[in-house]
Amino acid sequence: MEKIDHIGIAVNNLDERITYYTETLGLKLLKIEEVPSQNVRVAFIDAGNVHIELLEPLSAEGAIYNHIQKRGEGIQHIAFEVPDIYHKMSELREKGVRLLSEEPVPGAGGSKAAFLHPKDSFGVLYELYEKSDKGE
Amino acid sequence: MEKIDHIGIAVNNLDERITYYTETLGLKLLKIEEVPSQNVRVAFIDAGNVHIELLEPLSAEGAIYNHIQKRGEGIQHIAFEVPDIYHKMSELREKGVRLLSEEPVPGAGGSKAAFLHPKDSFGVLYELYEKSDKGE
Repeated sequence: MEKIDHIGIAVNNLDERITYYTETLGLKLLKIEEVPSQNVRVAFIDAGNVHIELLEPLSAEGAIYNHIQKRGEGIQHIAFEVPDIYHKMSELREKGVRLLSEEPVPGAGGSKAAFLHPKDSFGVLYELYEKSDKGE
Repeated sequence: MEKIDHIGIAVNNLDERITYYTETLGLKLLKIEEVPSQNVRVAFIDAGNVHIELLEPLSAEGAIYNHIQKRGEGIQHIAFEVPDIYHKMSELREKGVRLLSEEPVPGAGGSKAAFLHPKDSFGVLYELYEKSDKGE
């Protein structure tokens, strides 16, 4: 695990929440992107050393929609940047950690993502995140 | 807001959870400290660019104990490092954000801390965190 790349926060209304982060907290909006594979629209907020990802469900399904239904808006996951996601997935499996998918799933900006089972991390949903070659 | 200093995670058993972060995730334990003013014992884990603070309640009271009772173990807050906590508290109050204390409270390592009302941040508990002069 090199460092934390981003913190994912589930929100009901992306545009309203962006206003809070930019105008009230004074942080910078970097870009907005749709990630259909995870059924979300994402706003990337620059928090200095880490990105905050605001995640709005595109429809009434998927992990972000379910998080909001069960727990309300709030922090949904923490993503560790890893240089080689396949290597790290294999290392964690050997240590007995369950992963939520057999293979990495496509993330924002051409990245690859895999999630650790939150029960194995004591209630925290950790993501392994390998950036695309484009550096996004 | 300069950057994110740490992410606070509520845990039931500090020693067992430290083992997960160090042996399974491969991160480094920096130190363990008691913060009686917040009724917690804290383990500081180095996650590269950010610290992960594992927070165990010292007894059956306080914010961390209540978090575990209501929501189970998991992510409890995100702390922004600020150079001048009084200035930032005043700026946020002027923007209509409620703070959970009138004055900063003492945090780990001689730091000062103040929390934003999580309803004003749409379900996220944000902390303002001013390091002590000792740089801790």
